[in-house]
Amino acid sequence: MSDSLFSDAELVSTWLERHFASEDVAANRLLEAMAYAALNGGKRLRGCLVISAGRCVAQITGSDVRMDNLLSIAGAVELLHAYSLIHDDLPAMDDAELRRGKPATHIAFDEATAILAGDALQTQAFSILASDELAIADDVKIALVATLARASGVAGMAGGQMLDLQAEDKVLDVAEIRQMQDLKTGALISASVLMGAQAQGATDEMLAALASYADKLGYAFQIADDLLDALSDAEQLGKPAGRDAEQNKASLVSLLGLEEAQQITVQLAQDAEQALSRFGSAADDLVALARFAVNRSY
Amino acid sequence: MSDSLFSDAELVSTWLERHFASEDVAANRLLEAMAYAALNGGKRLRGCLVISAGRCVAQITGSDVRMDNLLSIAGAVELLHAYSLIHDDLPAMDDAELRRGKPATHIAFDEATAILAGDALQTQAFSILASDELAIADDVKIALVATLARASGVAGMAGGQMLDLQAEDKVLDVAEIRQMQDLKTGALISASVLMGAQAQGATDEMLAALASYADKLGYAFQIADDLLDALSDAEQLGKPAGRDAEQNKASLVSLLGLEEAQQITVQLAQDAEQALSRFGSAADDLVALARFAVNRSY
Repeated sequence: MSDSLFSDAELVSTWLERHFASEDVAANRLLEAMAYAALNGGKRLRGCLVISAGRCVAQITGSDVRMDNLLSIAGAVELLHAYSLIHDDLPAMDDAELRRGKPATHIAFDEATAILAGDALQTQAFSILASDELAIADDVKIALVATLARASGVAGMAGGQMLDLQAEDKVLDVAEIRQMQDLKTGALISASVLMGAQAQGATDEMLAALASYADKLGYAFQIADDLLDALSDAEQLGKPAGRDAEQNKASLVSLLGLEEAQQITVQLAQDAEQALSRFGSAADDLVALARFAVNRSY
Repeated sequence: MSDSLFSDAELVSTWLERHFASEDVAANRLLEAMAYAALNGGKRLRGCLVISAGRCVAQITGSDVRMDNLLSIAGAVELLHAYSLIHDDLPAMDDAELRRGKPATHIAFDEATAILAGDALQTQAFSILASDELAIADDVKIALVATLARASGVAGMAGGQMLDLQAEDKVLDVAEIRQMQDLKTGALISASVLMGAQAQGATDEMLAALASYADKLGYAFQIADDLLDALSDAEQLGKPAGRDAEQNKASLVSLLGLEEAQQITVQLAQDAEQALSRFGSAADDLVALARFAVNRSY
């Protein structure tokens, strides 16, 4: 990533650390597990997308970047993402013992605590969007809640995870894999872009261009993830490699082969870039994020 | 319950049935599991509290009852409650195979689907509060999201469930049990009352009286639940009776004995009634709900 994107990722991580440091609740162990999962490294891609999209819209419209608001929204999206990772790793789901090189939450704590930590992280995400710390008009806050809920629920991330689980027993075609991955991964990536843009007052036209970008980016990101799973070793990945093939998981890599999958990600990243061409240099960070998404090694 | 409360409960159930009938998503099995859990009978106490509190405030202020809005809010609260029941019943949590006389969601479907169904039901609750179907000013919608999130997260229901799990290994005193139950059950009951009142434009003074009522009602309801567990047979309860003692769960019933616990619930119901005395007959339904909460046999 470029320097400014790295520093965005650090700002998001710092925001999350402060967020958990300021909480004081009776259920300490639960808060610990939530913090463990949310502060466990990670690329902060979704948080960076919130900030970069917000910055892009601010530059086009000539308005001030409200970094405080963008960071709160980025934090909310990252908490939502952290919840999904905890639950995905559970024994009944992907049964993964490692996440980013460290024990998964249900290993570091226990299964019940992990389930509850995921539950409470989801709640926290919506709580932040409805809180006073977000200095945004109420109609925009409602739009943010609606965007995040749409991306996360039965017609979004949770629905995609269900299709993914069901895919273990059957052979999906390319269109079915795309639908599953659009829901499972793409929806929250798109929501990140849209929420950053909404917070900075994007017009419908800007949102449409950003949605087109995010759609392609999300798909490219997911295929790149599958390629990493197929090609990497465990140390680089921070989790066991080759899990998809082992679990007979549907992926474009297994269906089309490595080479074609790689070509598709490169094409998708270019298409994502193309969708933002009208924004000129205002979209530089978003373009860099699309390139990072397909070229990353972790 | 009185006739009007029974009909409220039916209206809430009908709203939920229509809600699921109108959804059309790719992840059908997930939607089925969500509907299975949410439509599986239940007293709809929380939904009734939303409606009765809204009706009470409308009568005091002389405004129209917006039944469409109250039903959407009642539906959102019931979906949130349904999510908590699915996750509470999971093998890693209370490991309950029956819920309301039918197989728990993880038995009727499978564990992974049950986890996801709970996750998506929580999302759906927030989605409804942010949706256009709720014809309420945006600042009130944000207040509703904030109230529901506060009641559900680490400082509310999820936090209480964590304390409950931790209590299996130690002996709690009366104050610790009260704190745990206030969070685990009381918070969402209070939120139901407050959200119905907020939707109908309650003043801060009204909200304070209703919060005091709800606080006592919530605690009375939980002790009554523990009494039912200790006294009922499985058929009446729709789930195995005596589970609390078996799992060495902390409850006032085990700590103080049946008689004192019963006296406390009666006193709490009277205190709840007293908190609403200034509202006169406008609070009749809420008073009836408090009496039902302690006298119910299921």
